[in-house]
Amino acid sequence: MCRWLAYSGSPVLLHDLLYKPENSLVVQSRHSRLGVEPVNGDGFGVGWYAGREVPGIYHCIEPAWNDRNLREISAQATAGRVFAHIRASTGSAVQQTNCHPFRHGRWLWMHNGSIADFPSVKRDLVLAVEPNLFPEIEGSTDSEVFFYLALTFGLEEDPPAAVARAVELIEETGRRHGVQYPVQMTVAVTDGESTWAFRYSSEGMSRSLFHSTDISTLRVQYPDNPMLDELSDDAKLVVSEPLGDLHGAWREVPESTCLVVRDGHEHLQAFSPSATHAS
Amino acid sequence: MCRWLAYSGSPVLLHDLLYKPENSLVVQSRHSRLGVEPVNGDGFGVGWYAGREVPGIYHCIEPAWNDRNLREISAQATAGRVFAHIRASTGSAVQQTNCHPFRHGRWLWMHNGSIADFPSVKRDLVLAVEPNLFPEIEGSTDSEVFFYLALTFGLEEDPPAAVARAVELIEETGRRHGVQYPVQMTVAVTDGESTWAFRYSSEGMSRSLFHSTDISTLRVQYPDNPMLDELSDDAKLVVSEPLGDLHGAWREVPESTCLVVRDGHEHLQAFSPSATHAS
Amino acid sequence: MCRWLAYSGSPVLLHDLLYKPENSLVVQSRHSRLGVEPVNGDGFGVGWYAGREVPGIYHCIEPAWNDRNLREISAQATAGRVFAHIRASTGSAVQQTNCHPFRHGRWLWMHNGSIADFPSVKRDLVLAVEPNLFPEIEGSTDSEVFFYLALTFGLEEDPPAAVARAVELIEETGRRHGVQYPVQMTVAVTDGESTWAFRYSSEGMSRSLFHSTDISTLRVQYPDNPMLDELSDDAKLVVSEPLGDLHGAWREVPESTCLVVRDGHEHLQAFSPSATHAS
Amino acid sequence: MCRWLAYSGSPVLLHDLLYKPENSLVVQSRHSRLGVEPVNGDGFGVGWYAGREVPGIYHCIEPAWNDRNLREISAQATAGRVFAHIRASTGSAVQQTNCHPFRHGRWLWMHNGSIADFPSVKRDLVLAVEPNLFPEIEGSTDSEVFFYLALTFGLEEDPPAAVARAVELIEETGRRHGVQYPVQMTVAVTDGESTWAFRYSSEGMSRSLFHSTDISTLRVQYPDNPMLDELSDDAKLVVSEPLGDLHGAWREVPESTCLVVRDGHEHLQAFSPSATHAS
Repeated sequence: MCRWLAYSGSPVLLHDLLYKPENSLVVQSRHSRLGVEPVNGDGFGVGWYAGREVPGIYHCIEPAWNDRNLREISAQATAGRVFAHIRASTGSAVQQTNCHPFRHGRWLWMHNGSIADFPSVKRDLVLAVEPNLFPEIEGSTDSEVFFYLALTFGLEEDPPAAVARAVELIEETGRRHGVQYPVQMTVAVTDGESTWAFRYSSEGMSRSLFHSTDISTLRVQYPDNPMLDELSDDAKLVVSEPLGDLHGAWREVPESTCLVVRDGHEHLQAFSPSATHAS
Repeated sequence: MCRWLAYSGSPVLLHDLLYKPENSLVVQSRHSRLGVEPVNGDGFGVGWYAGREVPGIYHCIEPAWNDRNLREISAQATAGRVFAHIRASTGSAVQQTNCHPFRHGRWLWMHNGSIADFPSVKRDLVLAVEPNLFPEIEGSTDSEVFFYLALTFGLEEDPPAAVARAVELIEETGRRHGVQYPVQMTVAVTDGESTWAFRYSSEGMSRSLFHSTDISTLRVQYPDNPMLDELSDDAKLVVSEPLGDLHGAWREVPESTCLVVRDGHEHLQAFSPSATHAS
Repeated sequence: MCRWLAYSGSPVLLHDLLYKPENSLVVQSRHSRLGVEPVNGDGFGVGWYAGREVPGIYHCIEPAWNDRNLREISAQATAGRVFAHIRASTGSAVQQTNCHPFRHGRWLWMHNGSIADFPSVKRDLVLAVEPNLFPEIEGSTDSEVFFYLALTFGLEEDPPAAVARAVELIEETGRRHGVQYPVQMTVAVTDGESTWAFRYSSEGMSRSLFHSTDISTLRVQYPDNPMLDELSDDAKLVVSEPLGDLHGAWREVPESTCLVVRDGHEHLQAFSPSATHAS
Repeated sequence: MCRWLAYSGSPVLLHDLLYKPENSLVVQSRHSRLGVEPVNGDGFGVGWYAGREVPGIYHCIEPAWNDRNLREISAQATAGRVFAHIRASTGSAVQQTNCHPFRHGRWLWMHNGSIADFPSVKRDLVLAVEPNLFPEIEGSTDSEVFFYLALTFGLEEDPPAAVARAVELIEETGRRHGVQYPVQMTVAVTDGESTWAFRYSSEGMSRSLFHSTDISTLRVQYPDNPMLDELSDDAKLVVSEPLGDLHGAWREVPESTCLVVRDGHEHLQAFSPSATHAS
């Protein structure tokens, strides 16, 4: 179980995203409200696009709440696309190579949930990864294998279709091994321009996922809210759980849905394993 | 805020003390029941006497619950005197030199609580430490300075008297700086033979502290309890919070009390800053 | 490139093995004399048999020379079989799951050298691992995959034969991928009773490997040597490089050789990939 | 013993400073050429000014050469003033609070060398620190106490005078404790605008220190050198040892000298403990 945040908009200081909100990701690392597990202290990661060829990533294995380097970097770096993730391990080792977001070229991927009974299906799934991509797998998590399956199935060309095929394969493989509900997921993936966020689970009871409503409207409603001051009108947040209690600020992403954020706009589309919608 | 455990008795496997109990210290590190703060994820330490000249200490800055080395060491080492401590930092850095127990020769010390407004009184307290001992202070916590004050005041000769004088100095110093309640403490200290445990606070509302009742009686009462199987009849535990729900197994240490455990026996004596009881 | 040490004999304090010798493994971590790379600062591991069902292992990612916990544990633990390893990464991540020795049940394995062009052959090798063993692979090193191949080929029944078959597979696989010299290795493996040490490389120019000569003879020769005082007459050491300059104390293990240490005796036997000697 | 680098000039990517040069600081961390100790693997730190109120600092306790986060951050962050430091501990713990550069407000400080027999003089020196500054001392190094002494003596008003008075105090204190040569130092300090670099030792045999010659002249001389391409004409580097073998690129800073870099210019001035030059 984990918690994550995906930001798109005008460049913001990472500190304003990660530390300032009342229920910020750093606060959630110690006391998540909606998580299956309140403590997410098994590592942290942030990825940000600062105008270089590839996004930066910072991965650490200490709990986010006492990582001084994270606080320092966040106080200096600004970015228009930010992925951040706090981890509660479901068994695999707490090490940097198991921290999200995972990166391939300009792409970042993060995941909350799990592939059920991963030890028994891991070998079959790993074999399905494109051999050229195989040596890039560095860690031991289900989430990273999931990413490489999506890449194998064309993530860089058509993310919703590639994720759908990856989920389809995971479900088939799981069922072949007698797993009832093979996939539990909220996933975010970006190329630095668009962001795709997925909420899905084999059992139809997925981990929580929310997206922010229109910031300019909120600003009119709450003229004194400091968090809103930091964000531009085009800011879009997708989060595992709301970053505060502001009434009307957050909308739940429905089950079996893919949310696409691009050019300051967002739209929802149905998501299912077999479906291969163009984005 | 922290949680700790002090064991005296026949040699036990550290694993049986730290991991087996229902509400073990490792479980408490993630979900303490009685602590001011439920998460104690800012470092861990264990000290054990394995028949060498000095006790061993293992200090780590990761949360106890995911430290594989702790699990490994615990599964191999046995000891008849064990101190273990999980830390929730009240501000000072999360680093090995700030982890309890602290060691001086054969002596170990650990503390739950705080010296109020430590930054403002630290200089005065540090100056009161015996100059020969001063260079041994390695970390930046109030707890370590407290230990060196107690050593300065004769801890190795008369622990209750030395701790009383240290508390007296801290209270005087705090009040001089306008602090209302300068000391909040449960402290355990041992030379590997006897253990002294203190419960005291300037405001008279101290952190929780419990000691185990007679193991042989409990064993008769609960013939099937696995935790009791691991412990010898002479086992004595002093803990920040009970390690399980066994009715009758734990007795609260009263406020302003020093509990002495020696030769398989224990007795309680009043403790107050000005009092200088012989042990 | 790495350096290692394998001890068999009467129980010794780990500290006497790891810190006391003039050119101890901890000294080598900073200044190896015979290594391809003088600094072996990319992690450390020690495995020891202390009479429990499985040996203990301690893995750390800091350089051995400044790991205080290693110093503490070494000062407390004694064992009759000890494996210790300092790592100089050839590319894979510095993380605990990549530290040697690797463990499977009662077995420990450590390796100095490499599987050439590992990224290009890794997938084929991993597929050859017995599916039941596959989920146990936790890290990303060539050395761990090598271990699981040996286990797949019957390491627990006939170590020299199993290692020979694993080497054979690695060489075949490497050559199929155009690698000229696929294997470079010194390997040590033990079940806690016997130790097998291998020196081999596809090009016939293997990493250095030495074993100790008879301790009782040395003791007569050097009555004042403190290191010899710590060791029993039956002590046998196999090491990447001599732990000191004592003339006559160390003998090189020849190329393409398996050294077996058992019951205080040792013997050498030829080792080659196709050969499947019974031990 | 440590090694450091101070950059002033047009904004550069940290990666170009820390990784690109042939004998970069990261290379030096494993194989310093001129250092007393070739390995500087006991922690790393970098401070950079990115236009915020305070400079950022990144401190890590792993060797610089295998710190992935350092590589990531360096590939994203640009700054016009950069301090970087690799540490070889002379005894104090390897922990983030002992990593250089140290920070106070907008000021950064780093030090190579030592205060001789620090344990015996530490108490006296710490007492001389301004009481208001005292609680800011977080670590246990001589270098940090030296910084706070300089701050006590007016570092923020007149750096050369303040450092001179701090050195004077350290020498007096050391001599009172029977220390022959109390100070060994190269020090760099900056407020983000000007940089002051000092080379001094009580025995007159100071650690190595170099500064770069005019970049535009070098560029004419070496039109094909890639490192020069990354640097602007106004770039000034002060370093413990040259970053490469380019003939004419580096000039030694003389003994007992303070080098001041400001507005793209530099000048040398004599430095001695009793002297209190205005800068």
